[in-house]
Amino acid sequence: MRPLLVFQTDFTYMEGAVAAMYGVVKSVDPTIELIDATHEIPQYDTWSASFRLNQYMRFWPKGTIFVSVVDPGVGTKRRACVAKTKDGYYIVTPDNGTLTHIKATSGIAEVREIDESINRLKRDDNKAVSIFHGRDLFGYCAARLASGIISYEEVGEAYPVDEIVIHEITKGEVFDTYAKGIFEINDPNFGNLWTNITLDDFNKVFKHGDKIHTIIEHEGKVVFDEVIPYYPSFGMAKDKSVMIYNNELNNIALAEVVGNLCKNYNLGYGSDYIVTFRKVESE
Amino acid sequence: MRPLLVFQTDFTYMEGAVAAMYGVVKSVDPTIELIDATHEIPQYDTWSASFRLNQYMRFWPKGTIFVSVVDPGVGTKRRACVAKTKDGYYIVTPDNGTLTHIKATSGIAEVREIDESINRLKRDDNKAVSIFHGRDLFGYCAARLASGIISYEEVGEAYPVDEIVIHEITKGEVFDTYAKGIFEINDPNFGNLWTNITLDDFNKVFKHGDKIHTIIEHEGKVVFDEVIPYYPSFGMAKDKSVMIYNNELNNIALAEVVGNLCKNYNLGYGSDYIVTFRKVESE
Amino acid sequence: MRPLLVFQTDFTYMEGAVAAMYGVVKSVDPTIELIDATHEIPQYDTWSASFRLNQYMRFWPKGTIFVSVVDPGVGTKRRACVAKTKDGYYIVTPDNGTLTHIKATSGIAEVREIDESINRLKRDDNKAVSIFHGRDLFGYCAARLASGIISYEEVGEAYPVDEIVIHEITKGEVFDTYAKGIFEINDPNFGNLWTNITLDDFNKVFKHGDKIHTIIEHEGKVVFDEVIPYYPSFGMAKDKSVMIYNNELNNIALAEVVGNLCKNYNLGYGSDYIVTFRKVESE
Repeated sequence: MRPLLVFQTDFTYMEGAVAAMYGVVKSVDPTIELIDATHEIPQYDTWSASFRLNQYMRFWPKGTIFVSVVDPGVGTKRRACVAKTKDGYYIVTPDNGTLTHIKATSGIAEVREIDESINRLKRDDNKAVSIFHGRDLFGYCAARLASGIISYEEVGEAYPVDEIVIHEITKGEVFDTYAKGIFEINDPNFGNLWTNITLDDFNKVFKHGDKIHTIIEHEGKVVFDEVIPYYPSFGMAKDKSVMIYNNELNNIALAEVVGNLCKNYNLGYGSDYIVTFRKVESE
Repeated sequence: MRPLLVFQTDFTYMEGAVAAMYGVVKSVDPTIELIDATHEIPQYDTWSASFRLNQYMRFWPKGTIFVSVVDPGVGTKRRACVAKTKDGYYIVTPDNGTLTHIKATSGIAEVREIDESINRLKRDDNKAVSIFHGRDLFGYCAARLASGIISYEEVGEAYPVDEIVIHEITKGEVFDTYAKGIFEINDPNFGNLWTNITLDDFNKVFKHGDKIHTIIEHEGKVVFDEVIPYYPSFGMAKDKSVMIYNNELNNIALAEVVGNLCKNYNLGYGSDYIVTFRKVESE
Repeated sequence: MRPLLVFQTDFTYMEGAVAAMYGVVKSVDPTIELIDATHEIPQYDTWSASFRLNQYMRFWPKGTIFVSVVDPGVGTKRRACVAKTKDGYYIVTPDNGTLTHIKATSGIAEVREIDESINRLKRDDNKAVSIFHGRDLFGYCAARLASGIISYEEVGEAYPVDEIVIHEITKGEVFDTYAKGIFEINDPNFGNLWTNITLDDFNKVFKHGDKIHTIIEHEGKVVFDEVIPYYPSFGMAKDKSVMIYNNELNNIALAEVVGNLCKNYNLGYGSDYIVTFRKVESE
């Protein structure tokens, strides 16, 4: 069984970029199956690219090759690389922060810089293009790797794993009577907000059914201050009420039930959004 | 030939949920082809999920397995089921209204509740998650069914078809000189509105080329009152004019030609939108 | 190796149209791989359909069959056709402008009108539908061609290539000290604007590193007037600055770096947007 090839970009399907990249892949090997993880990573957002990869990677068969192209620095000196994780996956990406979360969770066993003299698409009508490495470099190299034309070693030279570019990850903390963290990302579809506090930590202080005093501060100002319940699933709370739950990655999260917390409460994510949970009463 | 597996959800591709669900499917059987029907059902809208399934199901090969996950009650007592239709398709879904239209058209031959002790993904890092049955239950169970690991009978226990949760469907009516119904859904892309009046019924009163007095009432107020034509296709009317046509499901519909009726006339759908067509003259 | 089948429409995934079309394809031949180029062509916009096809077609393996359905005139006398390009691709489309760019670049070797008596889906419940040729005609005919059920000659009668409906294409011009053109399209995702001036032409006057006096006129009024740099890639300019670059098709383009030029400067594309580049100094 050959490895699967899965793509994640910030290209969207609004124009022809994905189709051009996929055409290159199919020209390398028409039997490769084209699999979208998503092409809707927020533009230029390497933090989200890194986070999403960590959200779904471990559910795929070992050996799967992921291509992640969110590449605001395309055409500059940032490295183009293929990383091999300690749990047996491959990630083809600009080395610009995409590997942050996977390095911290799965771990990176090895990383190689793509040798453009071998693994870059050569076309006469293409020689001057410096702004579309998804098509000309990452998609092309990944297709060669997936089809077995090159081995992992033939990607290019290895470089030290500790030279990989990473973003800072902060972890939530728990204390005797409260937990404190940030919203590290949102669910842009349902409008939920995901904290950096783990379920295991949170459960040292709280349990399902607890009413919890929840305070959100943004740039030093309190923007949310309510006592809300902590439940295992959405159906236990009233529609449009705000509740605490553990998300699919087993971190603590907030949702407006059958609503959109981000939109209806004008909230976002990032290190500027500090959330504190304090115990007040249990049922 | 193995059955095809087709997915419909309200997850969107904005984050990693689809990719996690598809990773589970490919981990069950990497040879399963991943087919999107759509991941853009309006959030929490089980009516739309049901309607869309009915819009496209019968065009697929017999035996195709559809997964439909619009699941606002995830983690509550609502049943997770696999229905077998009288015309030979399978639908893997929360039993929360998704089966409404298919039950009324194709008919349901049998329905089984998914046995979570067998057909739910077990992972150490996943044990506390109660909010993502698309990944852990529906996708996993459907992949096992599609790959032949389980038979339909091994999904779980059958339960009575008349216990299936359904929404109320209202039908448009025709009289001597007029037809009356509601907009039961829209085409959110082109902004057309689809009534619950069938073509066969409508044609008892009207014929192509007729100018028809069309009145739309919303919450008791008239919001549209014009004489407009009834044509077989859009190209017969002027751009930006409003016309009546029969849609792809052979129900009567309204469109603003090369425009967007919903947006430009501020119209929506639901039982609150009542539309009446009265004959005035024929050409 | 059978040919690949690639789809481009303005249907979006917001409702069930793509799923119905793909069901028809799979019912013709369940082994056909479903490949999305995009379903997000702007509604009714046959210029964009034509442009996008030209953006990605040549990156696909020879013999690939493209289905392009942007069809505001569905149900009228416009021809439904399959074109064969001089470089060996096939395009299944309404003949309404979609072939404009490919005719000018690859060239059209032959074009045939689809014979609806043979190559249109026949279903009892479908006989009155005149508004969904994507499902009933283009998808169905293309699937038969891709699976080898019909040969290209069996599509229908050939008609003269010079009867193909095309839009006017205007070309940018260069002079001793300046270049002048229009924005012929945008990148709706990153908000970049693509001119109709070729890289080869532009480089007769300018070189990388030049600061260039750039004036954009819209409906006779100057809407942008700045001296901006010309660079090979985005990473060389400051975030949020505007720069000139050559796009993936080797035409000259404008971008707001890590921003969105269209949105933040309220700019669009079309023959009403005239752009002039004048040399002022080189670094």
